[in-house]
Amino acid sequence: MAEHSPLLTQLIDSLKLLPGVGQKSAQRMALHLLKVDRHKAMKLGQNICEAVEKIQHCSQCRNYTEQDLCEICCNPNRKSTQMCVVETPTDLMAIENGTSYNGVYFVLMGKLSPLDGVGPDQLGLDKLEARLQSGDLEEIILATSSTMEGEVTAHVIAEMAKQNGLRTTRLAQGVPIGGELEYIDLNTLSQALDTRTDYK
Amino acid sequence: MAEHSPLLTQLIDSLKLLPGVGQKSAQRMALHLLKVDRHKAMKLGQNICEAVEKIQHCSQCRNYTEQDLCEICCNPNRKSTQMCVVETPTDLMAIENGTSYNGVYFVLMGKLSPLDGVGPDQLGLDKLEARLQSGDLEEIILATSSTMEGEVTAHVIAEMAKQNGLRTTRLAQGVPIGGELEYIDLNTLSQALDTRTDYK
Repeated sequence: MAEHSPLLTQLIDSLKLLPGVGQKSAQRMALHLLKVDRHKAMKLGQNICEAVEKIQHCSQCRNYTEQDLCEICCNPNRKSTQMCVVETPTDLMAIENGTSYNGVYFVLMGKLSPLDGVGPDQLGLDKLEARLQSGDLEEIILATSSTMEGEVTAHVIAEMAKQNGLRTTRLAQGVPIGGELEYIDLNTLSQALDTRTDYK
Repeated sequence: MAEHSPLLTQLIDSLKLLPGVGQKSAQRMALHLLKVDRHKAMKLGQNICEAVEKIQHCSQCRNYTEQDLCEICCNPNRKSTQMCVVETPTDLMAIENGTSYNGVYFVLMGKLSPLDGVGPDQLGLDKLEARLQSGDLEEIILATSSTMEGEVTAHVIAEMAKQNGLRTTRLAQGVPIGGELEYIDLNTLSQALDTRTDYK
């Protein structure tokens, strides 16, 4: 039984680093990279190296950036008194693309989950605390996810904000737009009824 | 509406080169690469560059290798009078892993498909012809796939082999082992009946 050439085997092994990629997909990807335009494939390799080497966390909001401050923190047109706390850069992008929010962010890069070894240090809560105490902020919007860990994380941050006398808000919870009642889970439905709003 | 940092955007764009990876998966992969062990991510980038730079086709069988001759062609224990013609390196690996075949190979890197611009030149049929004429071979096993293009490719190669007076065989066709008759397509079933063998 023969094997792929050493370099090819090595490439297949490292492609398994990508999320959701096992032996079969890695093999398919490796053969694809050797088949397509080699300049593009080489560029992919170089881009990975460059990104991994240069991209760090923004020193203010912890989002990924190759500068000291990310573009949102640098932008003078953004309302720097309003801060939205999100779990991941993907969540940040979702808010940027889907809403007209124009404040700044704080990216936790995770959520409190002691069993997985994620505590206040991993989420940069000391950095967040410093910003809350700075006196530059008026409102903290808690946009962590609506899971158990997300709620706990939101609660901890809300306590920190309260101690600094800041207005703290949470994304509204309820029935998703376009959602059919019969398919919505009972917790959501029950809460949506409890927190019903006046019909406008 | 903000965007990811330029380097991150560039990384996401190049990840879309991978097969079956669109914007969402590319974004997920990029953020994953920044989150995991950066040494491993860097190694992935380097491995891609190294593989793309050094891996070429074996000068004898066209399989991928970083040497002039691949390991199978170099191996003196393989029966060099028997040659199996396959479409891709993946097919070669399938035969290596699933069978006890101990001859050599010729990898077409595709199948005849004029509409996609794949003709005899792209499949290295001139190189195959030279090997058929060399007088070193006794048997050609046609292991192209059982599709229309695969059959046409097999037919063309069989004609070439016949002109050189070589024994030419084709993978057996019929009911797959473990296959239930009711789910097998009618062409296969009909052919399996026509080419039935004596019960041993």
